[in-house]
Amino acid sequence: MFDTFFHKSTIPAETKIAMLIMDGLGGLPAEPGGKTELETAFTPNMDALAARSELGLTMPVGPGITSGSGPGHLAIFGYDPLQYEIGRGALEALGIDFEMGADDVAARGNFCTIDENGILTDRRAGRLSTEESKKLVEQLRTIKIDGVEIFVEPVKEHRFAFIMRTPGLAEDLSESDPLKTGVATMPVKALTPEAQKAALITNEFIEKARILLKGQHPANMIMLRGFARFPKVPTYSEIFKLHPAAIAVNGMYRGVARLVGMDILPVDGATLADEFTTLEKYWEKYDFFYIHFKKTDTYGESGDFAGKVKAIEEFDALIPRLMQLQPDVVVIGGDHSSPAILHSHSWHPVPILLYSKYTRSNGLAQFGEQACSQGSLGVIPAKYVMPLALANAGRVAKYGA
Amino acid sequence: MFDTFFHKSTIPAETKIAMLIMDGLGGLPAEPGGKTELETAFTPNMDALAARSELGLTMPVGPGITSGSGPGHLAIFGYDPLQYEIGRGALEALGIDFEMGADDVAARGNFCTIDENGILTDRRAGRLSTEESKKLVEQLRTIKIDGVEIFVEPVKEHRFAFIMRTPGLAEDLSESDPLKTGVATMPVKALTPEAQKAALITNEFIEKARILLKGQHPANMIMLRGFARFPKVPTYSEIFKLHPAAIAVNGMYRGVARLVGMDILPVDGATLADEFTTLEKYWEKYDFFYIHFKKTDTYGESGDFAGKVKAIEEFDALIPRLMQLQPDVVVIGGDHSSPAILHSHSWHPVPILLYSKYTRSNGLAQFGEQACSQGSLGVIPAKYVMPLALANAGRVAKYGA
Repeated sequence: MFDTFFHKSTIPAETKIAMLIMDGLGGLPAEPGGKTELETAFTPNMDALAARSELGLTMPVGPGITSGSGPGHLAIFGYDPLQYEIGRGALEALGIDFEMGADDVAARGNFCTIDENGILTDRRAGRLSTEESKKLVEQLRTIKIDGVEIFVEPVKEHRFAFIMRTPGLAEDLSESDPLKTGVATMPVKALTPEAQKAALITNEFIEKARILLKGQHPANMIMLRGFARFPKVPTYSEIFKLHPAAIAVNGMYRGVARLVGMDILPVDGATLADEFTTLEKYWEKYDFFYIHFKKTDTYGESGDFAGKVKAIEEFDALIPRLMQLQPDVVVIGGDHSSPAILHSHSWHPVPILLYSKYTRSNGLAQFGEQACSQGSLGVIPAKYVMPLALANAGRVAKYGA
Repeated sequence: MFDTFFHKSTIPAETKIAMLIMDGLGGLPAEPGGKTELETAFTPNMDALAARSELGLTMPVGPGITSGSGPGHLAIFGYDPLQYEIGRGALEALGIDFEMGADDVAARGNFCTIDENGILTDRRAGRLSTEESKKLVEQLRTIKIDGVEIFVEPVKEHRFAFIMRTPGLAEDLSESDPLKTGVATMPVKALTPEAQKAALITNEFIEKARILLKGQHPANMIMLRGFARFPKVPTYSEIFKLHPAAIAVNGMYRGVARLVGMDILPVDGATLADEFTTLEKYWEKYDFFYIHFKKTDTYGESGDFAGKVKAIEEFDALIPRLMQLQPDVVVIGGDHSSPAILHSHSWHPVPILLYSKYTRSNGLAQFGEQACSQGSLGVIPAKYVMPLALANAGRVAKYGA
């Protein structure tokens, strides 16, 4: 109810908002009572900004929920991540920069190994290399099905993305992967009458793939799962009256940004400094910028505490380039936590910093988990960051008299 | 869901609650890193009380939303302001102390100027004086419509309130104000079949007003908009088992208090000290008192930082008179923020202080935005203040065994 009401309350303005997302920002101390990655990092620029900002902690999905990057991003972008679910297949397509259309149904594909009786013996075909996998994908691309456009795109190792495009598809399909060896792979079943057409196409594709791959080894079969359409999400221009742009190097983040209607800006290079160069170049053309920084999550997930600290310091060093552009509102936060000691995403709320001329500074000259837990924003659902950013940008109408 | 449950949980008791509302209380520092109006003010009495209270911040409507006084009051009174909307016309009637009945539909009226072809040339009839306007209202009062009671009440300058009273009215009417000059004023249209009767009456009134005002200048026509019924709000006695009274000088606040079923107490004079005299006089007769202080908002909206500081100090000086009455629960807060530097209402959460014998004091001997952001209440929806006040007053039953 609040979300719908809020969307009706937004108004256009000339102000600019910059949202900087350090992927997997939130962390944990390496030992009890110690400092987190963010607290350990030397971050003079963000600390100075924190002294002029409101701090808090964001919950991407809800208390205790460890969020993936998809829902984590949707949330910090201002959406309820439980309302807009990005299915596995759509996520796989997003991740390789595949532009899904409204008619498309995507699935995650696996090469696998079956024996002469069709019994699954290796669900990942010996985790074949990305190189080998790419060659097999070329073979799969020769498969034709009447009246349907089929796309097969290589992902990593034994994985690929499968997308079918034709009107009248639905995503309610059972999976062909039995999730264990020693049994046969399964044909796909339509779970609703609307999905019949998609089921027929999928099974025809799987059967043709089986014939095509027969006699090869170890990848002599495929499995498909996570059938999904691209979720219909109201765009930033519709609900926030913004003209938004995204600056991200990795496909999946560009994909989620495209989902909410952001223009994807080209980045010449792959570093954060390169992303800032793009920011500077396009600063006049948009009023909302999303800048994504992947390294924090990569180090968090690989358990590299020091690496994550260094990544945060690299990020901090670039903040002066942002502030020189004189943004009206700055948001610095994350899509979820990825504490190095957990080697994975986690449920911990994520530090958030909100800067504008109209924030009540917290007198806390440090950007870190501890300081943020004392901040005036409190512990809030991540989806409320955008309402606050828009208010600080003078982009929300008054309610009632 | 919680609201309904809570309403069933309230029980009567002998305790007394005083809720003091400083209109537009929340503020911002005059310069970054400085103190807000409330933090600047010398408030020894509230600071001493703060040391024995729980502090926090309230969001009237939701994150990022700038609330009007109507919804802001409904929220601090314990209602969801998105569930109970007070339409423009009803608000206009509230503001002039007009007692709307269940059958009434009210609208905001404007005197305006049209040319000989009926084309609108001035939407405010030269912003005619309140005195002139009052005389014209007397003329409008001579208009009779069969079977309908019509009320026309002067407001300020070119504005008046129009209320029709008869069974079978609905508020779903289009507006007669085109909101721009150079076009004709419009007849009102029923937007639902139920509103047909109200549309007929309204158009007959407008036509009779046109004939009556013909040849006068500059006010030779009227426009009506913001048609609204009085929202049906469950009363304090129904949902909170309270016998409540309101002490307010301005009409609109008395109106919102009447809406929730408070008795409106007479105030001999217009100062806060006069309001406290009323409080002392009626202390034995009620168990809930709402005391409204307007000046803080007036100074905030006019951008007078020092004036708002002084108003808060005037308020603070009266606190000992309240405490001598030995209230069981004291709430001191605001309906919304009105930072002087913004010259307007704002979205910032509002300081709240909750005192009773049973609060966990925060050890924060200051009532201000910064201290409140550290308070144990956290940042909460304003509608949760009443549940907390009632609990502290021993007026909420235990749930489950």
